[in-house]
Amino acid sequence: MTFTQKVRDVQHKKNSLLCIGLDVDLEKIPEHLKSAANPVLEFNRQIIEATCDLACAYKPNLAFYEAMGESGLIILRETLKLIPKSVITIGDGKRGDIGNTAERYAKSLFDDFGFDSVTVNLYMGFDSVEPFLKNPEKGVFLLALTSNSGSKDFQRLKVAGKPLYEKVIRTAKKWNTNQNIGFVVGATHPRELKAIRKIVPEMPLLIPGIGKQGGDLKSAVRDGCDKDGKLAIINASRSIIYASSGKDFADAARREAKKLVEEMRTY
Amino acid sequence: MTFTQKVRDVQHKKNSLLCIGLDVDLEKIPEHLKSAANPVLEFNRQIIEATCDLACAYKPNLAFYEAMGESGLIILRETLKLIPKSVITIGDGKRGDIGNTAERYAKSLFDDFGFDSVTVNLYMGFDSVEPFLKNPEKGVFLLALTSNSGSKDFQRLKVAGKPLYEKVIRTAKKWNTNQNIGFVVGATHPRELKAIRKIVPEMPLLIPGIGKQGGDLKSAVRDGCDKDGKLAIINASRSIIYASSGKDFADAARREAKKLVEEMRTY
Repeated sequence: MTFTQKVRDVQHKKNSLLCIGLDVDLEKIPEHLKSAANPVLEFNRQIIEATCDLACAYKPNLAFYEAMGESGLIILRETLKLIPKSVITIGDGKRGDIGNTAERYAKSLFDDFGFDSVTVNLYMGFDSVEPFLKNPEKGVFLLALTSNSGSKDFQRLKVAGKPLYEKVIRTAKKWNTNQNIGFVVGATHPRELKAIRKIVPEMPLLIPGIGKQGGDLKSAVRDGCDKDGKLAIINASRSIIYASSGKDFADAARREAKKLVEEMRTY
Repeated sequence: MTFTQKVRDVQHKKNSLLCIGLDVDLEKIPEHLKSAANPVLEFNRQIIEATCDLACAYKPNLAFYEAMGESGLIILRETLKLIPKSVITIGDGKRGDIGNTAERYAKSLFDDFGFDSVTVNLYMGFDSVEPFLKNPEKGVFLLALTSNSGSKDFQRLKVAGKPLYEKVIRTAKKWNTNQNIGFVVGATHPRELKAIRKIVPEMPLLIPGIGKQGGDLKSAVRDGCDKDGKLAIINASRSIIYASSGKDFADAARREAKKLVEEMRTY
């Protein structure tokens, strides 16, 4: 099954577009967990147990684990084992390097860690992306129009009258022979999201930026989904995992996740 | 001392523009090392000992270490300890993410690993770069015009009549208030290298692509240096570290490094 088909499948079975960002920071987890043998892993375990029936995907951002050094990589590996196979994993590392180096990243993230998909920065062009595309079952979300303020600095520059992110999307669409490419498009750009969905009616879109970053959930659903109401993977991180800083953090995360999923279903 | 000044200083003291890429692959190191307790670390130790008087910088590409899992990070950390303080270290990870995440990468690479400088991909704009710029002593090489074939796919697109990489350079030049920004420009683009040096007469250029990738060493030196014959950091990886696959690999690496340094001095 191609990655795109897997996204449809998982979203159909779970009736959910929600991706939960596991961007965990030792300083932000509840006090009572800090005496656990492995506080961050215990935090992730409880968050995953409380929310895995609601999420179609989990997205650990690699920076948060790398910031913990070697032990962070072990925590990441153990965290991935806790995620049921019925949920998609997205390794959010935004890697990108020349061909022989990109192969190493692909090997590490897909084969060693076992992620179902990754995020990739394509400024370096086709040979930096190609090694990630070989296996149709493994997905690649290419950065197109990101949710942050810096997205205007280069992504919106005009190339032959059209913004660079659009050129990126139209170019990478041609690389999608294995049906395993998607794009990262921030919910902070609702108008552009709608236009992008028209350009790629059948490719997955990973949509961060709702919650703390202020993106619009209604637009993320209505403009981000394909004609069957799928292929939009809408990410929330901090608003879910840090919904409470008390002993009830997992219940609070579940409540917040459930609220988002139910709100998405109404649109 | 700002990072730019440090580059001048090290290059003056060592009379060398050579950066050695420590892109080590367990499969490529000499057979006789494979019985060592830690073959990759032992390989790096001998390469560094044989070449550290000749190099102005070492550049480990993070992908090669990440591909070895947790133990790779330990090897990287131990390798950095073997590099004398008189040589600049460049953490080649090409990271780039939204502000609060980029902070984690900066913390990991600068504070935890202790790299003097890193490579960063700026497709995500200013807030993805800013956290790396705070400490004037720590350097950032932004990807501009890379050495690989994919560099033509996006980096050369015309923005208001000029190529994107030029826009990238002109924009980031304005961010250089701490005198710690440089650019990655491939030796495979000699004409453009010359033009870029005119745009940024006083910023460091990290120049990969000589050796296996076929870039021109003479141009890298003549067109890449500033008016004092400095600030071009010319990288060679595989042609040095795999100069021999026998027991003489460290001597062979030294010979190859010396040959390159002497050739550079003639230009």
